[in-house]
Amino acid sequence: MTDDAYAALDGLGAAPLWRFYGNLFPAQPRSRAVPYRWSWRDLRPHLLHFSETLSLHEAERRVLMLVNPGLTDPPATVNTLYAGLQIILPGETAQAHRHTSNAFRFVLEGEGAHTTVNGEPVRMAPGDLLLTPGWHWHDHTHQGDAPMIWLDALDYPMVNALEAGFYEQYHQRLQPLTRTADLGSRLFLHGRLTPAWIEPAGPNSPVTRYPWAETARALDAIADDATGSEVDGIALEYTDPFTGGPVMPTIGCRIHRLRPGFDGAGRRHTASTIVNVVRGEGATIVDGVRLEWSEHDTFAIPGWATYRHVNASASQDAVLFSYSDEPVMRSLGLYRTEPGDPGA
Amino acid sequence: MTDDAYAALDGLGAAPLWRFYGNLFPAQPRSRAVPYRWSWRDLRPHLLHFSETLSLHEAERRVLMLVNPGLTDPPATVNTLYAGLQIILPGETAQAHRHTSNAFRFVLEGEGAHTTVNGEPVRMAPGDLLLTPGWHWHDHTHQGDAPMIWLDALDYPMVNALEAGFYEQYHQRLQPLTRTADLGSRLFLHGRLTPAWIEPAGPNSPVTRYPWAETARALDAIADDATGSEVDGIALEYTDPFTGGPVMPTIGCRIHRLRPGFDGAGRRHTASTIVNVVRGEGATIVDGVRLEWSEHDTFAIPGWATYRHVNASASQDAVLFSYSDEPVMRSLGLYRTEPGDPGA
Amino acid sequence: MTDDAYAALDGLGAAPLWRFYGNLFPAQPRSRAVPYRWSWRDLRPHLLHFSETLSLHEAERRVLMLVNPGLTDPPATVNTLYAGLQIILPGETAQAHRHTSNAFRFVLEGEGAHTTVNGEPVRMAPGDLLLTPGWHWHDHTHQGDAPMIWLDALDYPMVNALEAGFYEQYHQRLQPLTRTADLGSRLFLHGRLTPAWIEPAGPNSPVTRYPWAETARALDAIADDATGSEVDGIALEYTDPFTGGPVMPTIGCRIHRLRPGFDGAGRRHTASTIVNVVRGEGATIVDGVRLEWSEHDTFAIPGWATYRHVNASASQDAVLFSYSDEPVMRSLGLYRTEPGDPGA
Amino acid sequence: MTDDAYAALDGLGAAPLWRFYGNLFPAQPRSRAVPYRWSWRDLRPHLLHFSETLSLHEAERRVLMLVNPGLTDPPATVNTLYAGLQIILPGETAQAHRHTSNAFRFVLEGEGAHTTVNGEPVRMAPGDLLLTPGWHWHDHTHQGDAPMIWLDALDYPMVNALEAGFYEQYHQRLQPLTRTADLGSRLFLHGRLTPAWIEPAGPNSPVTRYPWAETARALDAIADDATGSEVDGIALEYTDPFTGGPVMPTIGCRIHRLRPGFDGAGRRHTASTIVNVVRGEGATIVDGVRLEWSEHDTFAIPGWATYRHVNASASQDAVLFSYSDEPVMRSLGLYRTEPGDPGA
Repeated sequence: MTDDAYAALDGLGAAPLWRFYGNLFPAQPRSRAVPYRWSWRDLRPHLLHFSETLSLHEAERRVLMLVNPGLTDPPATVNTLYAGLQIILPGETAQAHRHTSNAFRFVLEGEGAHTTVNGEPVRMAPGDLLLTPGWHWHDHTHQGDAPMIWLDALDYPMVNALEAGFYEQYHQRLQPLTRTADLGSRLFLHGRLTPAWIEPAGPNSPVTRYPWAETARALDAIADDATGSEVDGIALEYTDPFTGGPVMPTIGCRIHRLRPGFDGAGRRHTASTIVNVVRGEGATIVDGVRLEWSEHDTFAIPGWATYRHVNASASQDAVLFSYSDEPVMRSLGLYRTEPGDPGA
Repeated sequence: MTDDAYAALDGLGAAPLWRFYGNLFPAQPRSRAVPYRWSWRDLRPHLLHFSETLSLHEAERRVLMLVNPGLTDPPATVNTLYAGLQIILPGETAQAHRHTSNAFRFVLEGEGAHTTVNGEPVRMAPGDLLLTPGWHWHDHTHQGDAPMIWLDALDYPMVNALEAGFYEQYHQRLQPLTRTADLGSRLFLHGRLTPAWIEPAGPNSPVTRYPWAETARALDAIADDATGSEVDGIALEYTDPFTGGPVMPTIGCRIHRLRPGFDGAGRRHTASTIVNVVRGEGATIVDGVRLEWSEHDTFAIPGWATYRHVNASASQDAVLFSYSDEPVMRSLGLYRTEPGDPGA
Repeated sequence: MTDDAYAALDGLGAAPLWRFYGNLFPAQPRSRAVPYRWSWRDLRPHLLHFSETLSLHEAERRVLMLVNPGLTDPPATVNTLYAGLQIILPGETAQAHRHTSNAFRFVLEGEGAHTTVNGEPVRMAPGDLLLTPGWHWHDHTHQGDAPMIWLDALDYPMVNALEAGFYEQYHQRLQPLTRTADLGSRLFLHGRLTPAWIEPAGPNSPVTRYPWAETARALDAIADDATGSEVDGIALEYTDPFTGGPVMPTIGCRIHRLRPGFDGAGRRHTASTIVNVVRGEGATIVDGVRLEWSEHDTFAIPGWATYRHVNASASQDAVLFSYSDEPVMRSLGLYRTEPGDPGA
Repeated sequence: MTDDAYAALDGLGAAPLWRFYGNLFPAQPRSRAVPYRWSWRDLRPHLLHFSETLSLHEAERRVLMLVNPGLTDPPATVNTLYAGLQIILPGETAQAHRHTSNAFRFVLEGEGAHTTVNGEPVRMAPGDLLLTPGWHWHDHTHQGDAPMIWLDALDYPMVNALEAGFYEQYHQRLQPLTRTADLGSRLFLHGRLTPAWIEPAGPNSPVTRYPWAETARALDAIADDATGSEVDGIALEYTDPFTGGPVMPTIGCRIHRLRPGFDGAGRRHTASTIVNVVRGEGATIVDGVRLEWSEHDTFAIPGWATYRHVNASASQDAVLFSYSDEPVMRSLGLYRTEPGDPGA
């Protein structure tokens, strides 16, 4: 009789909450993502292989997605964010398109390419951070003489989960150049000075490129008297000149300097994080899993996973580039953090 | 040989973006949710049935979830939000707990119950909107003499998708009463006056209860000279007195008055919406599907679905209560809207 | 020889700071304004006298300025703000004009007049607060059958001190009525509900009139369980529905209920305050000066003067309406407050 | 009889508005300040003279105030702001104190001195901008080997007009050094990167020093493709890293590059502006008055005065440093601007 009752609900589009309760209201988040490290040394040869065997006309973008073993369908690197390794060869171009997903590139190897963003060619060199915020036209052109590889980052896992993804291809392969090179970067680069005649044009930073040269100077300018964070080291946030906030509403980017012998404190927060190793060697322990890393490796710290960073070198700095969905957690009132010991 | 290459990627946690492209970057959102209407007339008897056959000690909450046919696992009403019909009998109490999901109740039938929110008993009467923002302790007690039914709303589908869900049960069945009844409502209720000695305590409205009596007066106060929206009628947003913004960072609530014969214009936006019918009869056409509705029915308008409202009566107002994730879409820069014709 | 040096400076537009130091950098503010009370009983007959002897065509506005004895040239009531008593007779109209100074009226006596603000006629009754924000056209028309008197408030002392005052007379005596009566009030009046189709049109509240009826309900709704402020009693701020902030960027308005026998704590702050007595009898001690007040009296609390309120009645509430430049002090980072004893 | 009436008002603290109307509500602002230029060539010898004849123990600060001929009592440079030329000799120190007035220094000549701000020694070199925000302890020490001269800027005219000025002397001549040199500058200097472990500590920029080296790089980085403002040239605003807004709530600072032959468009706004010439020669026409300027001269542009800049050189850039109360005008809703022709 009661079973009939349950059966009847089905036809009415209803279901008994009391039979789902525990699944819908976990005591704390259990990320489907797992701690994982992607090896630059192992993946680079495959990138080169595909660059020889697959043309950019077949592949709109020639990218190896870094797929978290816990997030294979749809593929993602952490719950809300994606990372991929993109390679482009001298003479190649990549089709102009735009999407509501916010994206950026962080350059790992090579020089001579540029990304054109809403008509502005933006040069690319190792360590440079290039923004392609939501719905900005972008295409790539490589005029250098060696392959270029960069980290591609997008928030499509979150944008798709929120069912807010739009995509459009440009009617030609490349968009016309309507601004001179790097203008969006040069206008905002130095001395915390902001052009007084420019108004914000959207919810994202107007800086098209944060050059490594400036990032390196920022790290060098902070002497040993700067305590920094015992968890994240000398952690500097890339900011939007108009707001002082994150570069895009869904992604925050940071550069971290871990001093020689840095042995960080453990912590966890609801934000999901992806890290790329700029320089040095070390390990990050995440929920008991030890992720050994060296130059250009990428690794994932799932949300609410406890982690701590270790710089393996007693004489050299380690430098990490990280990005996360912390801005989302904060603007939705869902950010939470606490100290903890990841073990191992 | 190339196949080997693809095989090898697998073991390295990588995958070729070019084989996933279309799925990850749709031209526009296709919500998994479908337009759907839940019938109050059909579901009410089942609620009463379970109220007789299932105790609140077996069921922490006695709620029929309104499950969208497109969103059965995990169950949700629209992509980011949930609606359920909760029933409580005279003399019953519902266990105190808290969760990071933001929630509210919108009362449909009965009187005499109260929800205790962080120590404050909040009375419940038809048409009242009661907030239980994230991580606020809440339990229910019914001292009236007839069953009470209300609409339960939560953002758990989004909070869980963002892996930010926490839940805790109170160590006793009911929390102690530490504030007098309805204080959080009385302090902010009239004349847009705000207590000068109270500071905001979180990212949500401090109003514990928006009484129907005031909502009705607001609708009555707006004469026919107020144009309102040709899409949503006289649509009024429930606001946070401290910010003027939505009542909670993830959910916006509105009351709509559709004048006699109202035949709305068509529109779509990226926000997902759930509507409950307070009064009147009519239909809402959503992507070609005609949803006929009458008092206390609930219906779903998926994100980016084109819709328009029709009041079937030439002499009576129709009044709709709606809630959506528009605040999320706006704070993340993902809100988009355009006119359109839902057909049918 | 040194004297020659000083003399020479003069011709070069220079002066020695060291000869001015103390005057320019006082240890703490010494307001030029003094504590003062203006007697309704004494001033009302003069208002009536001028209403008989002076036409509104001679006097663009028939207003008695409440001039602080410390602020006679230019005349002001406190350092940044002004109060005046305006009278208008049945059948009279007052010339339409606008100024960048923010203004409001708080009605003391009579009914049947309305102020037209940017095309909207706004009715006036005792206890109503009407806004005429900067650069809004406004004129007055009295169609009642008895004289009307209200408190006129402006920030011209501050606007003129900042050299930002503009003024324009309308090309006709009265502006055309382009909106129906009280629309700007009715749209925002009840239940903290805000029309979703209306965008903010400026830095001020869109509410044209905060009716006394709602203010009274707000005071009544707050039971004795509401502690309120030990300094200012049950102090409620009139707010801008779009921001939750003050009604205008330069003036904050509050209503205060002092319970029977209220004997307030002493405090001072950098904001300058003007108070009008809505109901009751009592005294406010300001820097040792005891200001006895009763219905419709007005009094001044200079910035950084220590004050405390006393309700003389053991059985009746006293109700005060106050306005101050606290929003200015806060937005410029100049707000400071501390407890203190005004003595006497 | 009417005269008696007026007489009687006096004793009651009242006055007839209709006899003051025009003075209180001018059609548009008429600044008491006049366009004026202070000659570096003429004033520098006097500075040197007083540095020899007046000790820093007699003069708490050895500063020549630049007094606008229209603003002699109290002395000010424009309506709301002040500029002075301060000189300090090798081996001298200037008494530690603090005031609620916001201040900054802009260095004109010499090296080797530092200002200590809340325990941090901040080095000073030509073109450097040093902030001493309200209520920050500050003192000066000169360990170099030649006199140093800088522009002293304060908002005391406005703070005093608002009766919000507090002042305190430190109990010793110099405050202890509790932070290493220039930390507040080094932490925020490069690449728009902001330390993630630091929270805003007040309504002002945390940058203690904006070094000229970075300002020069900012100007150089902007190629001729940057249009800039036809009124103010390549005008860059010094910003608060935490907000993107002005460096202090009452003062906005800018650097301007006028290209060779720049012949600006005319404009006026309600903000009052003070300009110091960093480099080059030219003229600024203000309400028909032609102010010829060359290196280190200072000039005043009163509020609502129409002005335009001219670079007299056809081959060299001119560089101007300006500061104004525009942030005040904007936060109070009093900012207004329009094009115009200053004549001459």
